[in-house]
Amino acid sequence: MTDNVFHQDFAISEEQRAQLKDHKSLMIWFTGLSGSGKSTVANALEQYLVGKKIHTFTLDGDNIRLGINADLGFSTEDRTENLRRIGHVGKLMVDAGLVCLAAFVSPLNHDRAALKEIIGKERFIEIFVDTPIEVCEARDVKGLYAKARRGEIKDFTGVNAPFEAPEHPDLVIDTSIEELAASVERIYKFIQNKLSL
Amino acid sequence: MTDNVFHQDFAISEEQRAQLKDHKSLMIWFTGLSGSGKSTVANALEQYLVGKKIHTFTLDGDNIRLGINADLGFSTEDRTENLRRIGHVGKLMVDAGLVCLAAFVSPLNHDRAALKEIIGKERFIEIFVDTPIEVCEARDVKGLYAKARRGEIKDFTGVNAPFEAPEHPDLVIDTSIEELAASVERIYKFIQNKLSL
Repeated sequence: MTDNVFHQDFAISEEQRAQLKDHKSLMIWFTGLSGSGKSTVANALEQYLVGKKIHTFTLDGDNIRLGINADLGFSTEDRTENLRRIGHVGKLMVDAGLVCLAAFVSPLNHDRAALKEIIGKERFIEIFVDTPIEVCEARDVKGLYAKARRGEIKDFTGVNAPFEAPEHPDLVIDTSIEELAASVERIYKFIQNKLSL
Repeated sequence: MTDNVFHQDFAISEEQRAQLKDHKSLMIWFTGLSGSGKSTVANALEQYLVGKKIHTFTLDGDNIRLGINADLGFSTEDRTENLRRIGHVGKLMVDAGLVCLAAFVSPLNHDRAALKEIIGKERFIEIFVDTPIEVCEARDVKGLYAKARRGEIKDFTGVNAPFEAPEHPDLVIDTSIEELAASVERIYKFIQNKLSL
């Protein structure tokens, strides 16, 4: 009886976790500008999924930047490290059998490619929340666009840092023209088969 | 409809998650020397819990050191950062409604105190796997004690780095004198009430 000898024997399989939860696990990644509506759609989707007895968890700035990534800033290196860690946390959530939702600007192709690599392409859904920047900026809930325009925030995505649009997103959502409930139903239709045992 | 406006309205509550899973969430933290049997007990407990339809996940060196903490070494600073991150991952797992098991040497009182702070004392169970070092060293599955005795590993807990025994562990287990099944049942009896809705 030692630390690792019986490790394999006792490991819970992916199938066991899926059986217990009655669905497969998945990462649903929302990428888009600040103010595009990523968190709103993710949160509404999570409510919808929980209503269908699907086991979920949402990763977003609130529970990541204040917790595990509280030591990171907003330099290019720190942003990449921020997403790398989120990718690994997300991987563990999906390994745990959950449907994990994640809402992060994640503006760069190579960072999103790294995320898919970490989590596994076959269980990674990429949703591009493609709301026009004028709409995002008009919303400006946190006043970040105004600050960025005044030059008080450097490297603010969409203002003075690039957003690289996903080349092959699984779904595209524009919250300025689609109702929230319609977006949620469209996402659910897309993932339904992937969740089925 | 913006990133955060509806955040509160759509948030899933702790109670909703517990209802869906039919049990409360908890962190079960195993601390002890290398070779003490932490992972073996954790893995056997996880099998037992899954058999009772409890939603679990186990964090250990295998899925942490090769993943989110692959950038960390074994200096004092890196060990503290290693545990800080594990604490935050564990917090998210418990926030997600899971019974999270974690098996890490975690030899220092202040690191374990920090973990309790991050995860929340009321949902943190500390299990001290107090197997005599002679037994741990005789097992030496990975040959680490031999290497440490030859001076090839610096700061190896129990050989040339301290293990600070927990002062008030919730349970103490000595895998050299207690059968695995008995340990598992003892832990289950201890946590059963804490899991009940």
